[in-house]
This record gives sequence, C-alpha cells and structure tokens, in this order.
Amino acid sequence: MRVLSGIQPTGRFHWGNYFGAIRQYIALQDNEQAFYFIADFHALTTIRDAARLREYTYEAAVDLLALGLDPAKATLFRQSDVPEVTELAWLLMTVTPMSWLEKCHAYKDKLAKGLPADVGLFAYPALMAADILIYDSQIVPVGSDQKQHVEITRDMAQRFHSYYGEVFTLPEAYILDESAKVPGIDGEKMSKSYNNTIEIFEPPKKLRKKVMSIKTDSTPLEAPKNPDTCAVFALYRLFATPEQQAELAERYRAGGMGYGEAKKLLYEAAMEYFAEARERRAQLEQQPDFVEDVLRTGARKARSKAQEVLARAREACGLKPRPVA
Amino acid sequence: MRVLSGIQPTGRFHWGNYFGAIRQYIALQDNEQAFYFIADFHALTTIRDAARLREYTYEAAVDLLALGLDPAKATLFRQSDVPEVTELAWLLMTVTPMSWLEKCHAYKDKLAKGLPADVGLFAYPALMAADILIYDSQIVPVGSDQKQHVEITRDMAQRFHSYYGEVFTLPEAYILDESAKVPGIDGEKMSKSYNNTIEIFEPPKKLRKKVMSIKTDSTPLEAPKNPDTCAVFALYRLFATPEQQAELAERYRAGGMGYGEAKKLLYEAAMEYFAEARERRAQLEQQPDFVEDVLRTGARKARSKAQEVLARAREACGLKPRPVA
Repeated sequence: MRVLSGIQPTGRFHWGNYFGAIRQYIALQDNEQAFYFIADFHALTTIRDAARLREYTYEAAVDLLALGLDPAKATLFRQSDVPEVTELAWLLMTVTPMSWLEKCHAYKDKLAKGLPADVGLFAYPALMAADILIYDSQIVPVGSDQKQHVEITRDMAQRFHSYYGEVFTLPEAYILDESAKVPGIDGEKMSKSYNNTIEIFEPPKKLRKKVMSIKTDSTPLEAPKNPDTCAVFALYRLFATPEQQAELAERYRAGGMGYGEAKKLLYEAAMEYFAEARERRAQLEQQPDFVEDVLRTGARKARSKAQEVLARAREACGLKPRPVA
Repeated sequence: MRVLSGIQPTGRFHWGNYFGAIRQYIALQDNEQAFYFIADFHALTTIRDAARLREYTYEAAVDLLALGLDPAKATLFRQSDVPEVTELAWLLMTVTPMSWLEKCHAYKDKLAKGLPADVGLFAYPALMAADILIYDSQIVPVGSDQKQHVEITRDMAQRFHSYYGEVFTLPEAYILDESAKVPGIDGEKMSKSYNNTIEIFEPPKKLRKKVMSIKTDSTPLEAPKNPDTCAVFALYRLFATPEQQAELAERYRAGGMGYGEAKKLLYEAAMEYFAEARERRAQLEQQPDFVEDVLRTGARKARSKAQEVLARAREACGLKPRPVA
C-alpha cells in the first residue's frame, strides 16, 4: 500500500513530534510503500525567511534520516521538487465549493480569533489534497485532528470524478496512536506553540538543562510522590523499559527521592534512547551531499509517479496529458 | 515592451470580442513583444466538459491566427503548456490576504446573487497575477472592468517583495478602447451571457439569418429613421468606410428605405470585412498540425521565460531555484 505523509519543516523536531508521529511513520516503512515529503510549499504559509526555510528543510531531512528513515525503504523528498502538486491543486480548486474550505479548522480558528488570514492558509487543504492524490496514496497517517483533511481530499476527488470520470485513488486516513502522553517542560502538551518543547537532538548540556527545568510540584524530598501526575515520569515512560518504569514508580511512591533524581534518570534514558540516532546524525552532518542525493533520488521517483497521475487528471478535464516540454 | 493577455476559450469569438479586444491585441503585435495565451486553466472554472474545452481551445487558436495574429510576431500558446503559473500562483497565495480576493468582482457578484462559488472562482485572480508576473509582463491590455486584476497583481508582487526582496516586474494596465459600440441582435451589448451574439466565422447563411433577426423598431418603410438609435447602423459603422456610413445614414434619414435593406448592407459589409480572415481560416482548418505547431513553439518560448522568472521567485523565498528534473 502507498503511504503518504508530509512533514512541516517548521523548526527542529521535538519529543512530541517523535512519539506522536515520526516514530510511527518510520515503522510504516517496513511493510508499506512510504512516500514522505518535507512540506516546504506549505511552510511558506508561516515561514517568510528564505534562509530559515532552507535550513529547516535540510535539517528536517537530516533528522528523519538520523531517526531511522531508510531511503532504501521509504521515499523521502522535498515537496517543492514535485511542483506538479500545485497544478493539481488548481484543478481541484476549480471543483471545490468555498464552503468546504471555509469549514477547515486552521482557517476557522484564525477567523474566530479575529486574525486576518492569507489565501495560503485558506487554500492549503486543496494543496494537501493534491499532495495525497498525486501519488495514488492509499493510506495517510494523520493525527485525529487532521482527519478532516483526508475527508476533504476524498470529497474533492469524488467531485472531480462526478464531472470527469474516475481518475484518483481514494485515500484512507490512518489515525496515529496518540496514546503516548508527551508533556512539555511546563507540564502542558509538548508543542512548539506553547514554547515548552525539548528537541530530540538538543546538545547534551542544553538537553540536561531543559530536563532539569521541567515543572514539578512542591512535594518535599522525603514525602511519597505520585508518578501518574508527574510530567517527568510521563516522559520517562517514553524512553524506559517496563522494568525501569516500575522501578522508578516504586521509588516515587516510597518517598525519599527528589524530582532532581528522577530528572537525571530521564535525561540518561533519553540520551540512551537516541544514542544511535545521535551518532547517525553526527555522521550525516559530515555528508551534506549524501542528504541532498537522498532527496533528489526520492524526488525523481515521486515526480515520475506525480506526472503519471497528473496526466490522467489533465486528460480527463480536457487539457493535453502533458505540457509541451 | 512585453505585452501579455489571456484569452478565455469559452466558445467561438463574436463581433463584440473582436472589436472590444482581439483587434486591439493583434494591433499590438507590430510594435511590442506580445505574449497571448489561451486561458484553459481559467476556463476550467466554467467549462466542465473535456471535449468542449479541447474544441474551444483549438478553435480559439485557429480564430486568432485567421484574424491576423502572426506567430512570427506574437507568441501564442496554451496556458496549460506553462504549468509553472500554478506554482507561482501558490507562492502568491501565501502572501495574499483573504480580503484582497474577497473584494474581487467576479466572486463578489456571485456572492451578492446568493450563488455558491467554487474556490477556483475565488482564487483565479492569484492565477491571473501569476500569468502576468511570470513573463515579466510590462503591459496588460484589459477592459476597464478588468483593471482591478492588474492592480491586485501589483499589490501581490509588492507584498512578495516586502518579504523576499525584488523579484517581479510591476505591470501596467493598458485600457482597451471600448468606444466601439457593439450591440447584439437584441440591441443590448453583445455578450455571450445575453445570448445575443453574432460569431465572426458564422457560416454565411447562418450569419445572414442572424443579421436579418436584429431587433429594430416599428417605423414604417416610408418614414425617416434615426441611424443613431439603430443597432443595425451601429454594427454597420464597425465594418463600413466613413463614406459608406454617411451614405447609409442619409438613406435612414430620408425615409423610403426599410430595415431589411440596411441589414442586407450590414451583412455584405461584414462578409467583406472578414473575407480575408475567412479564407485564412478555411486554409488553417486543413492544417491542424500547423496550428498545433504554432502553439507548441509559442509554449516553448513562453515556458522558458516562465522558468527563468519562477526560479527567481523560488530562490527568493527559500526553495531551490529549480525542482529536481
């Protein structure tokens, strides 16, 4: 099955990104034909700094490869290396009622806050639909809050079919496992917008400092503590074996252990967990040509598929299958 | 100077199209670098029939060539042969406030009538801006009601510049001469939407029948008539020499001439006026390969310019100048 996901290059990845999505994407590469792209066309709706976009895009690729995305299994590419998606987005826009985009969360939320929105924010579900449809994607792993996009994609495809006949493969949403609780350093859900993130590849010293700054309650050192309400413990669970978890939980409940100790254990577990990835990342940093080569090879494969699907769509609506070369 | 205009392939051209725009486009080819495209991407917002779009696009090219568009002087191409415009449209959308498109006439009018609009109708000014900017166009001939599009194009370009630095050439609107009054067969302004058109290349018999059906008042044959309030006379003026016009005006005022006679003269004048174009059209109909070849040659020239400008825009906002080939 063709699995498709786009990853926004909006800064370095944090633990929340990893456990909420990236880890699961990487797991899918073993049994599915995975296409993963770095969504630089989408990032333009929020990043308006060329150097920053270039950096984020490149770092996203390095991070993904370091974390185990295997270019021999999955196809990794830059969205903008397949500009055909913007063309398909236009074709889809011509059959999409305004009301469908008006109800999309990102735009509605902005409007509800009384903030002025750009057309990019409004129209991006059409680009997202094109991203999905242009590779004949069958499975689209998304968070439950993103399910709407896959539904709208299906709606657009079906509206296109109602005018022009069958062209697209209808995708199915694959809801990511969101059971892993990943609190940020303030105890709220880890998210860039809360400014409470811990980046996966934070330099060790900075990582340690961040971990030590995780908010805990004021239970005195001697008193018993509740692991189930503690952000440090919630994060520790992500990295530790069941035995290690049970052991630390016991020490929480016994009392006599301060949060500083738990944080130290968390830091060590996280360093251990990502040790291999850190090593791979250090190597990749020495090989920018290799990274670029992975992206180019991925783009060629993705683009050839995109051109095939777009040719079907163009022909169906009365354009030449391919533009004059 | 680079002149740019898009021509919608929404059916065969009529006298209103010719005197209001086409004739003026063709005149510009002598002294300017004219780029004229058949706007098939735009037509998708209204035509949803592949065979019809193909036919209209091809017939538009044949009509334009028959009417004197000279491929040795002007560059004629299909919009969809330069798909780069959809990509630039996306880049522009990311810097365009919703409010700018919300105030555009076509969308506003549809909304005012309580009709549901598609995203294509809403977003088409962004595609139009891309059409203009991607060829470094300097002059855009438009009807006065289309001036807004050139203004919005300038606004988008300037907003893009404010984020990313200078990239685009700012176009100027060149307002078409709309002084020629071209009434339709019902006396209202000739327009496809009023269903009152006379097509330029109507077969002679059908043309005659249409001309004979032009609405006139019930002044009896013997009575004097007012040429200045008569649709037949208004149309005759488009085709006749000043002497012929003066002569017919006199016969109107003298009385004793019926409208049937004036219509006959109009028919003859129109046939005479387009005689050469009809002959060329008959030849072109025998040479579909030649027509296709003109479009392909034009597309290659236009596309190479488009890729150059798009590369500047991509680089400015942090994408690779060109996608991986």
